[in-house]
Amino acid sequence: MNELIFDSIREFVKRHVEPLAVRIDKEDWYPRELVRKMGEMGFLAPMSEGLSLLDTALILKEIAKVSGSVALIQDAQGELVTEPLRVYGGDKYIVNALSKGELIGAFALSEPQGGSDVASIKTRAEKVNGKWVIKGKKMWTTQGLYADVYLVAAKTGENGLKSITTFLVRKGECVKVNKIEVMGNRGTGTAEVEFNNCEADNIVGEVNKGWEVVKYALLVGRVAISAIALGLAEGALEEALEWAKSRELFGTKLVEKQGIQWYLAESVAQLASLNALLKSVAKTEDVFKDEGKIAVLKYLSTRIATDIVDKAVQIMGGMGYAKGTKCERAYRDVRLGRIGEGTDEVQLGIIFKIINKEGLKYFSE
Amino acid sequence: MNELIFDSIREFVKRHVEPLAVRIDKEDWYPRELVRKMGEMGFLAPMSEGLSLLDTALILKEIAKVSGSVALIQDAQGELVTEPLRVYGGDKYIVNALSKGELIGAFALSEPQGGSDVASIKTRAEKVNGKWVIKGKKMWTTQGLYADVYLVAAKTGENGLKSITTFLVRKGECVKVNKIEVMGNRGTGTAEVEFNNCEADNIVGEVNKGWEVVKYALLVGRVAISAIALGLAEGALEEALEWAKSRELFGTKLVEKQGIQWYLAESVAQLASLNALLKSVAKTEDVFKDEGKIAVLKYLSTRIATDIVDKAVQIMGGMGYAKGTKCERAYRDVRLGRIGEGTDEVQLGIIFKIINKEGLKYFSE
Amino acid sequence: MNELIFDSIREFVKRHVEPLAVRIDKEDWYPRELVRKMGEMGFLAPMSEGLSLLDTALILKEIAKVSGSVALIQDAQGELVTEPLRVYGGDKYIVNALSKGELIGAFALSEPQGGSDVASIKTRAEKVNGKWVIKGKKMWTTQGLYADVYLVAAKTGENGLKSITTFLVRKGECVKVNKIEVMGNRGTGTAEVEFNNCEADNIVGEVNKGWEVVKYALLVGRVAISAIALGLAEGALEEALEWAKSRELFGTKLVEKQGIQWYLAESVAQLASLNALLKSVAKTEDVFKDEGKIAVLKYLSTRIATDIVDKAVQIMGGMGYAKGTKCERAYRDVRLGRIGEGTDEVQLGIIFKIINKEGLKYFSE
Amino acid sequence: MNELIFDSIREFVKRHVEPLAVRIDKEDWYPRELVRKMGEMGFLAPMSEGLSLLDTALILKEIAKVSGSVALIQDAQGELVTEPLRVYGGDKYIVNALSKGELIGAFALSEPQGGSDVASIKTRAEKVNGKWVIKGKKMWTTQGLYADVYLVAAKTGENGLKSITTFLVRKGECVKVNKIEVMGNRGTGTAEVEFNNCEADNIVGEVNKGWEVVKYALLVGRVAISAIALGLAEGALEEALEWAKSRELFGTKLVEKQGIQWYLAESVAQLASLNALLKSVAKTEDVFKDEGKIAVLKYLSTRIATDIVDKAVQIMGGMGYAKGTKCERAYRDVRLGRIGEGTDEVQLGIIFKIINKEGLKYFSE
Repeated sequence: MNELIFDSIREFVKRHVEPLAVRIDKEDWYPRELVRKMGEMGFLAPMSEGLSLLDTALILKEIAKVSGSVALIQDAQGELVTEPLRVYGGDKYIVNALSKGELIGAFALSEPQGGSDVASIKTRAEKVNGKWVIKGKKMWTTQGLYADVYLVAAKTGENGLKSITTFLVRKGECVKVNKIEVMGNRGTGTAEVEFNNCEADNIVGEVNKGWEVVKYALLVGRVAISAIALGLAEGALEEALEWAKSRELFGTKLVEKQGIQWYLAESVAQLASLNALLKSVAKTEDVFKDEGKIAVLKYLSTRIATDIVDKAVQIMGGMGYAKGTKCERAYRDVRLGRIGEGTDEVQLGIIFKIINKEGLKYFSE
Repeated sequence: MNELIFDSIREFVKRHVEPLAVRIDKEDWYPRELVRKMGEMGFLAPMSEGLSLLDTALILKEIAKVSGSVALIQDAQGELVTEPLRVYGGDKYIVNALSKGELIGAFALSEPQGGSDVASIKTRAEKVNGKWVIKGKKMWTTQGLYADVYLVAAKTGENGLKSITTFLVRKGECVKVNKIEVMGNRGTGTAEVEFNNCEADNIVGEVNKGWEVVKYALLVGRVAISAIALGLAEGALEEALEWAKSRELFGTKLVEKQGIQWYLAESVAQLASLNALLKSVAKTEDVFKDEGKIAVLKYLSTRIATDIVDKAVQIMGGMGYAKGTKCERAYRDVRLGRIGEGTDEVQLGIIFKIINKEGLKYFSE
Repeated sequence: MNELIFDSIREFVKRHVEPLAVRIDKEDWYPRELVRKMGEMGFLAPMSEGLSLLDTALILKEIAKVSGSVALIQDAQGELVTEPLRVYGGDKYIVNALSKGELIGAFALSEPQGGSDVASIKTRAEKVNGKWVIKGKKMWTTQGLYADVYLVAAKTGENGLKSITTFLVRKGECVKVNKIEVMGNRGTGTAEVEFNNCEADNIVGEVNKGWEVVKYALLVGRVAISAIALGLAEGALEEALEWAKSRELFGTKLVEKQGIQWYLAESVAQLASLNALLKSVAKTEDVFKDEGKIAVLKYLSTRIATDIVDKAVQIMGGMGYAKGTKCERAYRDVRLGRIGEGTDEVQLGIIFKIINKEGLKYFSE
Repeated sequence: MNELIFDSIREFVKRHVEPLAVRIDKEDWYPRELVRKMGEMGFLAPMSEGLSLLDTALILKEIAKVSGSVALIQDAQGELVTEPLRVYGGDKYIVNALSKGELIGAFALSEPQGGSDVASIKTRAEKVNGKWVIKGKKMWTTQGLYADVYLVAAKTGENGLKSITTFLVRKGECVKVNKIEVMGNRGTGTAEVEFNNCEADNIVGEVNKGWEVVKYALLVGRVAISAIALGLAEGALEEALEWAKSRELFGTKLVEKQGIQWYLAESVAQLASLNALLKSVAKTEDVFKDEGKIAVLKYLSTRIATDIVDKAVQIMGGMGYAKGTKCERAYRDVRLGRIGEGTDEVQLGIIFKIINKEGLKYFSE
C-alpha cells in the first residue's frame, strides 16, 4: 500500500475510530456519522476509489486493530454491496452515494433456514406488470437495521444456483426489519429483514446469473473478513504485550516469565505467517480463479486469529475478561470470522473440491 | 450423588433457574430471590447441609448447564465464603444465614496489582484499641456489589504468606463498591471493593494463618469452577446436538454430515473423560493433600470445556453467535474458568512443583 | 490391583523386559523365551488367571513403560486370542497352552482390502466333507509370523456381519506367512497370513455368530491398547523428566526453565486424567454395554499419549531422536495406537452412533 | 525459480533419488554416488552456482518430497558447509570440490553437553608453533561419518560467543568418528566426531568472529530445513491423497468420506500457507537482518509439517505405519525439523527477543 494512504488510515483510526470503539460495542450503537466520514476519506469502499483488494484488506486491518465493529461495517458497506454493484453494473449515483457513506447498504443473502446454502433460498422475485416484486425473509443481514438500499438475492426459477438473481431494493414500507442481538461486532445493525412484495429498483447483473454476483461479493468479503481477523489479533496482541511489559507478578515483570514469552512469540509467529498469506492471496487478479486460495486464507486467518486473541486474553488475566479492553472485545468479535461469509466447513469443502479435481498442484504453486 | 437430590436439583434448575438465565445475562441482573430459594432448598452451600464436595460439584454442574452465572453465584456464596467460615470457625449464625441465602457473602482476595499473587496483597489489618481495622482495595470480587459480609484476606505482618490473616467484615459505610463489567457470568455482581478502615467482626481461623483459609477456599473453589465448566460444556453440547438433529442444510440434516458427527463425537469423548476426572478428584478426603490433583482437574476441565463450547458454537453457526442461545452465553461464561481462582499458568506451576519434588508417582497412582 | 501383583510385575519388567527392549526393537527380534516366562508368571493372559480387565490393563501399562513391543505381544496373545477362546469355548488345552506361552497365537482378522471393515472380509470358510476349510489372506496380523494357532474370522454366508464365523486354525503347510516391516512395535512378528484351504480345528463360538467373538476381542483389545499407550507415555515422560533434571543448558538446568516446566506439567496433567479414565472404564462388567465408553478411552488415550510422547521427545532434544532412548522408541510405538484395533475414526463413529440414538446421557453418567 | 531448473530438478529426483529412497532409509546407507551426481548437476550447493536462497529452498523441497535423507545431505553439504566457506573466504578449490560433491563436508558445531548453547562449547583451538590445533568432541554431526573436511567451531578465548572461531579441518588420523543411529533421515552419516589435536587447514572468517560464520550457516540452514519439512509434508500428503482416492472402505471410496475430505483440505490449507511463508521469507537479501522472520518460518514450518504428515499417516491407516511408504518415512524424518538447527524453543526465544525490543512492527510489516 501506498505509504501515504497507510499513514492516513492510521491517523484516521486513531482520531475517529478509537474514541468510539467502546461505546459502539457497549451500547450496540451504529456510528452513522463515522460512516460518512470514512466515505469522505475514501476508506469506506476503497475499490470504488481505485484502490486494490490488497489495499482494502490493509485498510480493514488497521481499522480492526481498534474496532472489529467498524471494520465489519466497512466490509458490509464496501465489499459486500458497493463493490458488486460497481462491477455488475449498479446505478452510478447509488454506487457513489454508498461509497461516500451517504446511503447505507446491506447484502441480504442468508435466510433463516440456512446461512451457507444459497441454492436453497426461499426469497422469490416475480415479474408483475413489468416490475420485479420480491417476497421473502433474510437473516444475519449486517447493517440490515439501518440500510437505505439492499442487495437482495432471490430465486427467479427452479434451477438451484442457476436461478438466482440479485436485485437492488430500496428501503420502504414493504421492508420490515428486526434487530438480531449478537455476541460481538456489536453496533453493526445485524437484522432479520422481511421483504413483503417490494418492487426492485433494478436487477444487478443478469437474470438468473445472480450466483456470480453473490459469489463475487462473498469472495471479496472473505478476503475482507480475513483481514479483519488479523487486525483484531494484532490489536489484542499489542495490548497484551504492553500489559506483560508493565505488569508485575510474583516479583517480576510478567514479560520476564518464559512461559509468557513463548505465548507472545508463538502468537507473533502465527500473525507474521498470516500476514504473508494475506499479502500473497489478496493481490489476486481474479477472485474466481483464486477461490481456493481465498478459502485457505479465510479458513486459516479466522481460526488462527481466534487462537491468538485467546492467548492475548490469557496473558491479560482478569483484565482480558473485563469490559473496556481490546482483548475482551476482540475475543467476541473475532469469533464471527469462523462463521460469517462461509463457515470454516464451507471453506474446507471448497478446498477439497479443488484438490479432488486438480490434486495439490493448485495450492503448491 | 443420592438420586433424590439429583432429581430435585434438576427439577429446581428447570423451574427456577432456566427461566431467568437470559435475563440475568442480558441485564447484568443479580437474582436475589433465586439465591434465597437455592438457600431454602439446600443448594446454595451444600457442604453446610452435610453433602460432600462431589455432591456439590454435581449440583453445580446441573446449574451451569443452564446458567453459568447462577452457578458462579453459588460458588462464590457457598464454596468461597460459607464453606471456609464453616470449617475455620465462623459465627454459626452467619454461616447459617449464608447457607440459607439470607445474607450474601463475598470472598475479597484479589487486588488490583495482581490476582494470583497472594503473598503481595497490600490490604492491611491493624489492631487499634483491641479491634482489627482493615484498609485496602480488592478487585474481581464476585458478589462484591451485593454482599452483606466479606471474607477478607489482609496482611498482618511482613512475612509474605505467613502474615496473611482472614477476617469477616460486614458491609457498612466504610465499604465502597464499584461495579466491574465483564464478558460473561454476568449478573454476579463482580466488583472492586474498598475497605476504608473497616472494623472486622472477627478473625476467621488464626492470626497469620489466613493463607490456610484462603487456600482451602481456593481448593474447594477450583473443584467448583471445574464442575461449572463441565456443566457449561454439557449444556452447550446438548443444544448443539439438538440443533444438528433438526437443522437441514444442503439437502440433509446437519447431523448426517460426517464432519459434524466427528465434532460431536470428539466433544462427547472429551466431556466423558472430564466427568470421570471430576468424579475421581472431587471425592477427595483432603483437598490440601490433593492440591496437585485438583490443579490437574482445574487446568484440564476449564481448557477442554472451552474447546467443547467452541465446537458447539461452530455447529450452531450464526445461532451460536446470537444472543439467547446457551451456546452464545456459554462461550463467554466458560472462558472465565481459565482465569479465575488460579489461572491455567498457576495450576501448571502447582503441578510442576509436585513432579519436581516427587516425580510422576503422585499423579500416576 | 493387588499390591503384590503390582510389585511382582514391576520386578519382572525390570529384570526380564527392560534388558531386552532395545534389542527387540533394533533387530526386529521376537523374544520367544520372554513370552514363555511371562506365561509362567501369569502375566501373558491375566484374565485366564482370574485377574480382571483392569488388572490386565495395569499390567500392560507397566510393561509398556519399558517396551511397547512386549506389551503388544501380550495384547496379541492374551487379549486378542486367549481371552476370546476362553470365553467362547475354545479347547481348554489350547487356552492353557496359550496362557502359559507354550503356544503362540494370532488373531487373523484384518485383510488387505480394508482393516476396519469387517463386514467386507473376503476370507471364506466352506464345509467340505464335514470339515470347515478356510481360504483367504489376512494382513497386519501381530505375531502372525510366529503363531502356532490362529483365531481366524471368515465369511460363512452372504449376510455381512451376520455371516462371520470365527475358527481356530493350526499352523501347517497350508499357511503361508510374509513379514510386514513396520515403524514401531517391532519384534512382534507382524505378518501377512495366507490360508490356502486350511482345515479348521474347530469353530470358536457359533456358526455365523463370529462377529460377537470378533467384537469381544476388539473391545478387550481396545482397553489393552489404551493401557499400552499410557504406559508408553509414562515411560517417555519419566525419561524426559530425568533428562530435564540433569541436563544443563544456557547456564541453568533444563528443568529450571519455565517453558519446560509447563511442558512437563501439562503432560502430567494429561496423563493423570487418562489414568482416571482408564480406571473408570476398565472396571467395566460388560464390554459390549460399555462399547461407547471403551471407544472414548481408546480415542483419547492413544491420541493424547501420542502428544505426551511428542513433548517428551522435544524436551530430550537430539537424544529424543536418537536410537536407544525410550522416547525415540515410544514415539514410533505409540503411533500405532491410533490405527490398530479400530482407528480414531472408527471410535468416533461408534461414539456418534450412541449419541445420535441416546443423546449425551450414556456418556455423562 | 526458473522453470528450467524446476523441471530439471523434478526430473533428476524422479530418475536418481526416488529409486534409492527406501534403501537409504532401510539400510542406513549413504548414497555417495548420488551426491556426486547432484554436484555435477549443480543441485548440491546451489548458491555456489549462482542460485538464490529461495531457489535452493525450492530445490530442497523437491528432493524432500521423495527423500528427507537426501535433502538433509544436500543441506549439510551445501548450506551448512559450502555456503559459509564460500561467503567467509574458504579455499576456492575446496568450495568447488564440495559443491561438485567430490569432497564431503560436515558442520561440526553441536557438542554432547548441549546442542543449541554455542557459547558453552568446549572444543578448543590453540596456537601451537604457528598452527591452530583443535581438541574436542562434537555430536549430531550430519555427514560426520563420511566427511573429508569439517567446518569446526571452537573456542579461542573466554569471551563466550565473542571467542568462537571457525576452522576448516581435514579428516585424518586425529579424527575419530562414531556413528549415531537416529529415528529418521537415516543414511546421512550422523556421527559423534572427536578431534584429537588436529591441525586446522585454515581459519574460516576471522579469529574470534566465528559466531558470525556459525550464525550464517544456521540461518541459511533454517531456511533449508523449513523447505525440507514442506517437501516431506507435500510428499506424504500426495501419497495419502492417492490412497484415499483408490481405497474403498465400508462401501465407498475413502475420499468420499467428509471427515477424510476435511483432513485433506485442512492439510492442504496449512501447506499452501507455509509455501507462501517460505516464498516470502526465503527471498531475504540479508539473513542476519531477517533472523526473526527465519525463526518464524522455521518454527511454524517444521511444527505444522509434522502435523500434516501425521494426518497423512492417519489417512493411510496401517499402510502409513508400514515400511516402504513415504508416509511412514516422512513421519520419522519430519520430526527432526523441530530439533535440528535450533529447536522450536530456540526459535521462540529469538522471536521474543525481537518483540521485546521492537514490538510487533518487525513482524507485521
